[in-house]
Amino acid sequence: MPIITLLTDFRDFYPAAMKAVILTIAPQTNIVDITHGIPPQNIKWGAAALSFTAPSFPDNTVHIAVVDPGVGSERRSLAIRATGKKTQYLAGPDNGLLIPAAKTIGSFEVFEIFSRSTEKPSPTFHGRDIFAPVGAKLSLGEDIHEMGVPITDFIELPTKAPAISNNILTGEIIFIDSFGNIITNIPEEIAFKFVNYGETVFLEDRPLPFVRTYTDVNSGKPLLLIGSHGFLEISLNRANARDYFNIDTEDIIQITK
Amino acid sequence: MPIITLLTDFRDFYPAAMKAVILTIAPQTNIVDITHGIPPQNIKWGAAALSFTAPSFPDNTVHIAVVDPGVGSERRSLAIRATGKKTQYLAGPDNGLLIPAAKTIGSFEVFEIFSRSTEKPSPTFHGRDIFAPVGAKLSLGEDIHEMGVPITDFIELPTKAPAISNNILTGEIIFIDSFGNIITNIPEEIAFKFVNYGETVFLEDRPLPFVRTYTDVNSGKPLLLIGSHGFLEISLNRANARDYFNIDTEDIIQITK
Amino acid sequence: MPIITLLTDFRDFYPAAMKAVILTIAPQTNIVDITHGIPPQNIKWGAAALSFTAPSFPDNTVHIAVVDPGVGSERRSLAIRATGKKTQYLAGPDNGLLIPAAKTIGSFEVFEIFSRSTEKPSPTFHGRDIFAPVGAKLSLGEDIHEMGVPITDFIELPTKAPAISNNILTGEIIFIDSFGNIITNIPEEIAFKFVNYGETVFLEDRPLPFVRTYTDVNSGKPLLLIGSHGFLEISLNRANARDYFNIDTEDIIQITK
Repeated sequence: MPIITLLTDFRDFYPAAMKAVILTIAPQTNIVDITHGIPPQNIKWGAAALSFTAPSFPDNTVHIAVVDPGVGSERRSLAIRATGKKTQYLAGPDNGLLIPAAKTIGSFEVFEIFSRSTEKPSPTFHGRDIFAPVGAKLSLGEDIHEMGVPITDFIELPTKAPAISNNILTGEIIFIDSFGNIITNIPEEIAFKFVNYGETVFLEDRPLPFVRTYTDVNSGKPLLLIGSHGFLEISLNRANARDYFNIDTEDIIQITK
Repeated sequence: MPIITLLTDFRDFYPAAMKAVILTIAPQTNIVDITHGIPPQNIKWGAAALSFTAPSFPDNTVHIAVVDPGVGSERRSLAIRATGKKTQYLAGPDNGLLIPAAKTIGSFEVFEIFSRSTEKPSPTFHGRDIFAPVGAKLSLGEDIHEMGVPITDFIELPTKAPAISNNILTGEIIFIDSFGNIITNIPEEIAFKFVNYGETVFLEDRPLPFVRTYTDVNSGKPLLLIGSHGFLEISLNRANARDYFNIDTEDIIQITK
Repeated sequence: MPIITLLTDFRDFYPAAMKAVILTIAPQTNIVDITHGIPPQNIKWGAAALSFTAPSFPDNTVHIAVVDPGVGSERRSLAIRATGKKTQYLAGPDNGLLIPAAKTIGSFEVFEIFSRSTEKPSPTFHGRDIFAPVGAKLSLGEDIHEMGVPITDFIELPTKAPAISNNILTGEIIFIDSFGNIITNIPEEIAFKFVNYGETVFLEDRPLPFVRTYTDVNSGKPLLLIGSHGFLEISLNRANARDYFNIDTEDIIQITK
C-alpha cells in the first residue's frame, strides 16, 4: 500500500478535500497527516516540520506539503525526487517549503510541474487541484520526468547559518512546538563544539544547563538539549520555554558562555 | 477498500470511539476524517462543510456526519442514498445536516433508520451507537432499504436564498474557515450576474475588489472571489476577514454596488 | 490489517514521527488516532481517555499511549497483554497511564520492555524510539514474552474511590471533555445506589436533575447523567459545565442530596 503524507497550514475541511482527490486517483493509498497545524502561511515552520519527519518514512513515500501564501500567483509548482538511503517524492509550491526535507533525504532533482489537466485548477486551492493529483500519480509509480521539466533555480528560504564566534553560538529559531520547546537550526555537531554536557551557558543572561533530557533539571527550570530531531532545543522541564523567554519565530538566537 | 468519512463536532476520544465500532464491524475500512472541528452544535456550518467535501469522494463512499444537539430526544436518525455522477451514502441525525450534501451529489432517497439492535444505544452518543454501525454496514454493501423506512418529511435548515435586487446582492454566511475567510451561499452563477472580475463592490461601505485569487490585492487588503468550493467568499490577502469585518456566522450578508 | 492506536499529549509533527517508524516496521498497519489532545503531561486524563476507548477496538489491537513527563529518567517502559472478551496490547511508560485501560479490558500481564536495539533511543522521545517499534512488533504478532520481563510492581495512579456516606456521593473528576462535560470516576452501579432518574441532587448547592440525556433539561441548564462511557457526568444542555461550575481537573467532587 503506497503512502502519501500531508503537511499543510489548512484547517477545516480542506485537508479532506485533498484526500478525496487522492483516493479517487489512487484508492489504495495510506494517507498519513504529518501535521495541519503549521501557523498560517509560515513557510519556515512548515519546512522545518517536513524536514524533521519526512525522511523517516518508508521508501517511495510521497510527501505533499502546502504552505502557500502565493497560491494563484506566478509562483511555480514543484515535484521533487530525493534519494539517499531511501527514495522519496515531494510535491508542493516553489517557495522553499520542500527544500530542507529534500536535502535531509539526500541528493535531489527538482521538476516544475506542468499541468496537462483539461480542468482549470482553482486559483485558490492548488493543494487540491495540482499537488494532490501529482502526489497520487507519483504514489502509483508514474514517472516524475513525465510530469514536469527539471529546474535548478528553485527558491530557497533565506537562513542564518549557525556559527560560533567570540564565545557566542548564533543560530535561528526554526520551530516552536506546542509544548513551547524552541527548536533551532543548530545541529548536534556544531552544538558540541560550543558546549559539553554538564556545562551551563546563557540565553538573555539566564542560565541554561546543557543536559540530556528534560528531567535532568527541576520542574519549571530552563535547559538546553539536543532534541529528538537532532537540533539544539531550548526547553523547560514541564513548562513552556516560549512563554518563559518570550521568544517568537522570527528571532535569531544567541547563546553565550 | 471501502471508504467511510466522519464529520462531527466531537473532540477528545469521541471520534475514536466511533472508529472502534466501525472497524469491529468492517475491519478493512479506510476511515477518513472530514473534520471534527465544527463549532459545537453548529448544524449550519457542519452542513456546509459536508456539502463542500463529500461529493468529491469516490463512488460508494459512506459519510457519517454528527452535529447533533438533539441527541437522545425524539429526533429521527437518517440514512440517505444519493446518486449523481456517483452514488454516495450518508448517515446522521434528522436536523438538516445531511441534506445540502445529498442535494449537491444529485437525487436522493431518505430513510428513517430503525434500530434492530438488541443493545440499547446510549442516549447521549448516537454517533457511536447508531450512525457508526449503520455506516459500517452500508460500507459493506448492506441494502439501505433493509435499514429503515423511506420518508419525505425530513428536516431542512432554513436558508436565505441568494438574491439580487436594487443593486444589492443578498446571501447568507454558511461557513467561516480558520483563515477567517467568510464563505457565503451565493454560487458562482449568481455572483457573476452581479459583478465582473475587475469591478469593486462594497461590504459595510468598505470596498471589495472582485478578483481571481488572494494575491491579486496587496497584503492585508480585503477582496471578493469565487472560493475553491464554488461560492462567493470574502477574504483578506494574508489576513483575517472575520476579524476585519467583525462578522459572525448567523449574519445575512449584503454586498452593494 | 492489524490496528495500532495512538494516544498522546503530542502535537505538531511528533505523532507523525511515530507513524513513520510504525509503517517502516509494519507497513500494512491501520493506524488510528485515539487523541493527541490530552493536556500536556496530564497522565490522569490520558488514562481515562484510553480506558474509555481502547476496550472497544477489535481483537489484537495494539494501543500505544504516551503521556510521559518522566521521559529519559529512570521510569520503566511497559508492554501489557490484557485479555477479556478480546485480547489487546498496550505499550507506554510506567506511570499509571496504561493500567485503567488494562483493567477495563480484563486480566493482564505487565512486562518491562528491555531494549535490544543497537541504536540508542532519544532521551526525549521514547514514543518514537521505544513504544512505536514495540507496538509495531506486537502488531506483527511478535511474542510479548520475548520483549521484556514480567513485573508486578508497576505504578498505579492514586485515585479517590467513589463512595456514598451521609447522603454525600464522593468521587473524582477524571476527564473534562471539550464540550465542558465533567466526567467522574463514579460508575453507573454506584450512581444508581445514590440517585434515581427524576430526582434532583446538588453540586455546590446548585440543583442537578438526574436525567437520561442532555435535552431532558432546558437549554443552558445543568444536569447529571450516565455518560456514554458508563460513568456519572455533570453537563449542561447546549452549554459548558466546566465554565458554569468553574471546576478543574484535580478536584474531588461531592454530590449531595
